[in-house]
Amino acid sequence: MSDTGSNAMWGGRFAAGPDAIMEAINASIGFDKRLAKQDIEGSRAHAAMLAATGILRDSDAEAIREGLLTVLSEIEGGTFQFSTALEDIHMNVEARLKELLGDPAGRLHTARSRNDQVATDFRLWVRDQIDAAISGLEALQSALLEQAEAGADWVMPGFTHLQTAQPVTWGHHMMAYVEMFGRDAGRFRDARARMNECPLGAAALAGTSFPIDRHMTAGALGFDAPCANSLDAVSDRDFALEFLSSATICAMHLSRFAEELVIWSSAQFRFVALSDRFSTGSSIMPQKKNPDAAELIRAKIGRILGANVALLTVMKGLPLAYSKDMQEDKEQVFDAADNLMLALAAMEGMVSDMTANRPALEAAAASGFSTATDLADWLVRELDMPFRDAHHVTGALVKLAEDKGCDLPDLTLEEMQGVSAGITEGVFGVLGVHNSVASRMSYGGTAPEQVRAQIARWKEKLA
Amino acid sequence: MSDTGSNAMWGGRFAAGPDAIMEAINASIGFDKRLAKQDIEGSRAHAAMLAATGILRDSDAEAIREGLLTVLSEIEGGTFQFSTALEDIHMNVEARLKELLGDPAGRLHTARSRNDQVATDFRLWVRDQIDAAISGLEALQSALLEQAEAGADWVMPGFTHLQTAQPVTWGHHMMAYVEMFGRDAGRFRDARARMNECPLGAAALAGTSFPIDRHMTAGALGFDAPCANSLDAVSDRDFALEFLSSATICAMHLSRFAEELVIWSSAQFRFVALSDRFSTGSSIMPQKKNPDAAELIRAKIGRILGANVALLTVMKGLPLAYSKDMQEDKEQVFDAADNLMLALAAMEGMVSDMTANRPALEAAAASGFSTATDLADWLVRELDMPFRDAHHVTGALVKLAEDKGCDLPDLTLEEMQGVSAGITEGVFGVLGVHNSVASRMSYGGTAPEQVRAQIARWKEKLA
Amino acid sequence: MSDTGSNAMWGGRFAAGPDAIMEAINASIGFDKRLAKQDIEGSRAHAAMLAATGILRDSDAEAIREGLLTVLSEIEGGTFQFSTALEDIHMNVEARLKELLGDPAGRLHTARSRNDQVATDFRLWVRDQIDAAISGLEALQSALLEQAEAGADWVMPGFTHLQTAQPVTWGHHMMAYVEMFGRDAGRFRDARARMNECPLGAAALAGTSFPIDRHMTAGALGFDAPCANSLDAVSDRDFALEFLSSATICAMHLSRFAEELVIWSSAQFRFVALSDRFSTGSSIMPQKKNPDAAELIRAKIGRILGANVALLTVMKGLPLAYSKDMQEDKEQVFDAADNLMLALAAMEGMVSDMTANRPALEAAAASGFSTATDLADWLVRELDMPFRDAHHVTGALVKLAEDKGCDLPDLTLEEMQGVSAGITEGVFGVLGVHNSVASRMSYGGTAPEQVRAQIARWKEKLA
Amino acid sequence: MSDTGSNAMWGGRFAAGPDAIMEAINASIGFDKRLAKQDIEGSRAHAAMLAATGILRDSDAEAIREGLLTVLSEIEGGTFQFSTALEDIHMNVEARLKELLGDPAGRLHTARSRNDQVATDFRLWVRDQIDAAISGLEALQSALLEQAEAGADWVMPGFTHLQTAQPVTWGHHMMAYVEMFGRDAGRFRDARARMNECPLGAAALAGTSFPIDRHMTAGALGFDAPCANSLDAVSDRDFALEFLSSATICAMHLSRFAEELVIWSSAQFRFVALSDRFSTGSSIMPQKKNPDAAELIRAKIGRILGANVALLTVMKGLPLAYSKDMQEDKEQVFDAADNLMLALAAMEGMVSDMTANRPALEAAAASGFSTATDLADWLVRELDMPFRDAHHVTGALVKLAEDKGCDLPDLTLEEMQGVSAGITEGVFGVLGVHNSVASRMSYGGTAPEQVRAQIARWKEKLA
Repeated sequence: MSDTGSNAMWGGRFAAGPDAIMEAINASIGFDKRLAKQDIEGSRAHAAMLAATGILRDSDAEAIREGLLTVLSEIEGGTFQFSTALEDIHMNVEARLKELLGDPAGRLHTARSRNDQVATDFRLWVRDQIDAAISGLEALQSALLEQAEAGADWVMPGFTHLQTAQPVTWGHHMMAYVEMFGRDAGRFRDARARMNECPLGAAALAGTSFPIDRHMTAGALGFDAPCANSLDAVSDRDFALEFLSSATICAMHLSRFAEELVIWSSAQFRFVALSDRFSTGSSIMPQKKNPDAAELIRAKIGRILGANVALLTVMKGLPLAYSKDMQEDKEQVFDAADNLMLALAAMEGMVSDMTANRPALEAAAASGFSTATDLADWLVRELDMPFRDAHHVTGALVKLAEDKGCDLPDLTLEEMQGVSAGITEGVFGVLGVHNSVASRMSYGGTAPEQVRAQIARWKEKLA
Repeated sequence: MSDTGSNAMWGGRFAAGPDAIMEAINASIGFDKRLAKQDIEGSRAHAAMLAATGILRDSDAEAIREGLLTVLSEIEGGTFQFSTALEDIHMNVEARLKELLGDPAGRLHTARSRNDQVATDFRLWVRDQIDAAISGLEALQSALLEQAEAGADWVMPGFTHLQTAQPVTWGHHMMAYVEMFGRDAGRFRDARARMNECPLGAAALAGTSFPIDRHMTAGALGFDAPCANSLDAVSDRDFALEFLSSATICAMHLSRFAEELVIWSSAQFRFVALSDRFSTGSSIMPQKKNPDAAELIRAKIGRILGANVALLTVMKGLPLAYSKDMQEDKEQVFDAADNLMLALAAMEGMVSDMTANRPALEAAAASGFSTATDLADWLVRELDMPFRDAHHVTGALVKLAEDKGCDLPDLTLEEMQGVSAGITEGVFGVLGVHNSVASRMSYGGTAPEQVRAQIARWKEKLA
Repeated sequence: MSDTGSNAMWGGRFAAGPDAIMEAINASIGFDKRLAKQDIEGSRAHAAMLAATGILRDSDAEAIREGLLTVLSEIEGGTFQFSTALEDIHMNVEARLKELLGDPAGRLHTARSRNDQVATDFRLWVRDQIDAAISGLEALQSALLEQAEAGADWVMPGFTHLQTAQPVTWGHHMMAYVEMFGRDAGRFRDARARMNECPLGAAALAGTSFPIDRHMTAGALGFDAPCANSLDAVSDRDFALEFLSSATICAMHLSRFAEELVIWSSAQFRFVALSDRFSTGSSIMPQKKNPDAAELIRAKIGRILGANVALLTVMKGLPLAYSKDMQEDKEQVFDAADNLMLALAAMEGMVSDMTANRPALEAAAASGFSTATDLADWLVRELDMPFRDAHHVTGALVKLAEDKGCDLPDLTLEEMQGVSAGITEGVFGVLGVHNSVASRMSYGGTAPEQVRAQIARWKEKLA
Repeated sequence: MSDTGSNAMWGGRFAAGPDAIMEAINASIGFDKRLAKQDIEGSRAHAAMLAATGILRDSDAEAIREGLLTVLSEIEGGTFQFSTALEDIHMNVEARLKELLGDPAGRLHTARSRNDQVATDFRLWVRDQIDAAISGLEALQSALLEQAEAGADWVMPGFTHLQTAQPVTWGHHMMAYVEMFGRDAGRFRDARARMNECPLGAAALAGTSFPIDRHMTAGALGFDAPCANSLDAVSDRDFALEFLSSATICAMHLSRFAEELVIWSSAQFRFVALSDRFSTGSSIMPQKKNPDAAELIRAKIGRILGANVALLTVMKGLPLAYSKDMQEDKEQVFDAADNLMLALAAMEGMVSDMTANRPALEAAAASGFSTATDLADWLVRELDMPFRDAHHVTGALVKLAEDKGCDLPDLTLEEMQGVSAGITEGVFGVLGVHNSVASRMSYGGTAPEQVRAQIARWKEKLA
């Protein structure tokens, strides 16, 4: 359905015959050919097991296993002729195997069905994607760690409501995303552990009377165990949904960082400069640099969430066991996986390449009396002043600075004591953005010392 | 990203260079080539207008218009070489035009930008899909009308909670969907009228200082008017969202009918027989017929709703005017449109082909004392009995019939009068499923006479 | 389920008896009491029709109609005792009516059922919300028109990718939203026209054998006609979905403007000052003003889209006619409607109160050589220079200005002619942001004259 | 916003003053009062830590901790006066504490902010819900295990495409859901482990300069550790999203079983009888039993998925750290949690109460030559016949039985040998539904022996 204008065919009543319509809606080979490698891997394990349990002659099994490798090389080499009439990847592979081997090819399908076969193929594919996602996340975390390390003590505004609230460090901000992407990786790891059971041998839905060894095939394919209920094995897709859910949450994190990069790249903020490689320019406005990659990453949550909603809606209310509705599972997962991996790679590239604008960050951090809370905290902590009073004094000092057109640390001690007599020289230790961040030494706080401790912890974890 | 294994590229840290990643995430030619026809149509209208307003020499405009036809024929003929380096369909077409014409090709882009160009192309494409959807819906309605006409007086169970409630007619049930699909078509028509304004001439976002005639291009492309605000013209995608919303509601209706067809095809119901063309069989269980097409149609709401959610999420919170995020609009709409058209065509085919099992429908309609409410209504209407009393009497008569192992119309008048003395011979006029449906003569009711009136009304509407 | 801790009840096995669980999941009175006014309105129309058609004695009908007014006044006065055991609003009202009137109350339910009753009530409720949405949108448009009129010629940056692209006018930017909200209102109007058919008289699902007059009740309740198919009338909820779809698209528009207001309020942009009423401050940082209302409006698309997805998922695959699943329709629509109306009102308030920072807008508009495209267009238009050459010359002039640390209009004619000999004095007519916007006179362009024409058009429309 | 008609207020322009609108959109006390217990628990832990670290006097801390218990008892006792002017639960509690204690109450807020406070409260609440979900799932699994044990060897049809495919056992079908709900519980457990880190002490966003002990508060509140990055701690809501994702997948499983119960309860299937407690009846059709609870459970995925989509959409693209948008997190999670717990409890109740109709199940299992695949497998296994031949022979035998109007096991050996000479007496060992299921002895297969092994495994797991 992807070529130009093809769907004009279906709009009108007499435009296409019913057979063409049925083939178009029913065949899956257009997309499930992406499972070719997994399908052949599964069939090879199945053949070996059939031989080991005496269901198949060793010679037949060997011929099948060799033939499957031939088919795989044809597919990978681009010489394989896919046929829509053969509907799906399973039948395309099997038909070609039959051409190559003749009758013994037909024995491969003993003690299995397309239902357990596709469930196995798809799990293998999703498992690979989970591994790719984890590896992409770790690469991104490494890029963030490098940024964090370089700027562990650079100050920048910490925003709430996109209004400057308190100064934080660049390293601290980067490390916030290291934490988020770390949890994302954890979600993928948990999903992998949970889905790592093998449907093969569940057959159509009820298991089989052949004396198969499901533990053997499970082991050969890297699964921890065979699925313990054959109906469940062929009819659930929660593993795909858990992958999509994890991908969606990860895409949400990516969208937040991407939004920051777009805003930070604006002429008004100028907090970062993105590299030319991940931006596009203008032939006539040389200073203009559009953060295209960041915008596209920000958008990716749309299609990944869309895929998640799509598959959940498909699965809603389906009776056991297999229903054809479930054929709609793969395209959603393929598209979500492709786009997640691409977004992770692009984000990693952007983070590696980007340059923080230290002077702009520091100037913004210092604006807006951003250390007023430090002052209030100092009054409470050092002078044992009740909060309400501390806020009152701080407000008065801010007003004084504002009237003088200076920042808080620029007030003299005398001026401060004019507002609250007990204030001592020590107050200057928390005013100014560098003092402010250095003072936030609580565990997980923005003090460079704390940030460096977290960087060290993560470096060890990712090593 | 659609070929086997391609995304393995992005998973790991060092696997692909940043340039490859940026090209992969940034280029749209892989999908926006489906806009080729619309792009060329728009450019031809633009060139004609530039000539008419004296911005372009007539000879240049003529050469451009001819050259564009050549490009179109190359694309439709499959000989056009698309280039990813040229990013999108607009630049691919323009580059080829330059090869064909040399310098004059460069003048085509006067007084426009890619922003208004893509907005125009995409509107034209969506408008075509709306027309296709309406035509598909009308074809489906016609198929339903044929079923309704054939079975205007066949009785079947009317369900609530999938429990038999009251008898209805086959024709009445079919006509319920004619109404739903009629409203769906209405939604598409309204969407078409609302979106039929032309963005061309909005340029990058602010309009242009060239003396263009936007009413001329709008008219040439079949639009009712030019968009009245250039910022709005290039930055909104509500027309695509309204298309997706209408498609989603339509897919919901399709899913309901598809679910009924799946249930009705079960061995337990046997209400309909689907044709072989829209089912798949089993080589060893000849009586088994899987309603594959119905299941796939039922599932389509998933991806259509998913596309809707995807684009809404993309558009959420985007500042004006164009942001690159919006490049994610097309694939969602393409996929939703393709699948909606396919689902409509498949449903039309299934409806045209399917055979109602009249005996099974009638037997099911008569079971479960389905005319008990008719009896109660008769008591209220004819004997002026209060509702509570009528329900009490009816319950007693049902109990009596149940004990005797017969249906309500099989009770004798004497037996009935034993329960409630005032019952007369007239009661038999509403008992039995045919009497029941015939009596429901309220406007829009299930009486065959009412059903035939609605069929006639719709035939006229669709004529 | 809204009180503190109530759901602890359901978590554990033995914590609540099955009867309590069933009552909790089954009863709807907790939310459908919001339909009380519509329910009573519908019942009053029904009673009048039953009398007019002779099904009910006039005296009974009159007593019922009076009694219903009493019930309504009790509900509106807060003295009505709602009972969960009576499940829903219909039975609560009817039970109270029975207490007031005795037996005649029971005759009200003649020739109808709860299925057509709730469908009617809910349509009436949704119709009111559509009217409220349209009125809220028009109020918002009026507030935007005032802003547009005040600043029809104030210049500000037109952004693409949040990068300054070309200067536009404040009025033009405001008018972009007037267009969007105008289409939103159009969607609501179309939805209203389509849904304005009356389900009353469809009874349980099949119509009725009582000689009712459905046109009379439809007319009395302000509907254009009765629904033409009784099955469809009681089992579809597409009218609610169309309301939700329209609300979601509108919420998307609101989220975009809200995002702009959040960004514009930042210390880095300072494009607007929001009023204190729609912001929150800090007791110690007097200059900090958090755009809370804008953020909350930006977020509202979440729950409105969520409600839309929820109801679509509920309706997916439901066989006709009524299924209990459909009881989940109301809370979603209630919540979406409440939040849409609130967001519209808050946005109108914010827009009415906000103050544009003209100097900041103008300074930003002029930065970044934002009139470079004007220069290039001038070269094409006036010197008939091909685009590519015009871009080359413009790039060179921008480079020259950048090196000199000045803006384009600050270059001398001689300096310009040094780059391209043909440049004349006339070029200064398009340089500078005011010249730039004034020159964009194409229909719908940003020139103040065009903006004022659009303001006039809309004022007439909304008058 | 929940009372009748309240939102009429916002629809029109002049209906409500801006202050009322701002209060309505801004205040959260209407829903966040559900966090009262968690808020007070968190504050008590914070006060104890402030004392232990010397930041607060012991006597003040003790007074605060006592005072908080008083406030809690007032809230739980229903005597607490919530104030909308005080916006949220935190300020409501604190204000009351101040009334009770005077000045020392003000010291409680030392070294924390509402940002870390609400993040902590909400995590505690979600953690409780996770525990409730796990306990609800285990109760449901136990109910399913009882059904499975009772019917480990009852035969029923195994469906694909809602068409009878092969016989399975009732126990096997029940155990499929035990597996699904087991994975659901696993997802909740993983989510719990991941989210069990304490935000308290992150303060507004940057940590604090007070010498707090975050490990102490984390431990006191049952967290495994404090969050390692203060920005991340206050600004992410992925823990809520992971809860919602897990809940959505679980709701999908529930919807599938609910759909089966609705279909199985139909007059056409009659596979199960639901108890009166979880159904509703008809006063005049005594045999009618509507599966209301099953339908409502089927529908619950709608609002749970809707909540998931809502919060993901809210979080999309939010810059760090706290934005007011995030106030929209709680209602979604509250509603989803309430409805999930209710659905689990109702499903457990229904499963415990329901009665399988063994004769109907067995009759349906035997219809449609459901053991044809057993026959084909036997031919392959015992006669070493190639698959294609085995299918051919089986098809011929089915045809023969169909012509004779009997089932496969009713054919004589001679008749069978007439089709394929090599067939032996042994074939009858796999024909007939009981033989069929007994033969499917592969691990996880439907053989009663396998089913009982899985029951035993799960009983041990849940013990």
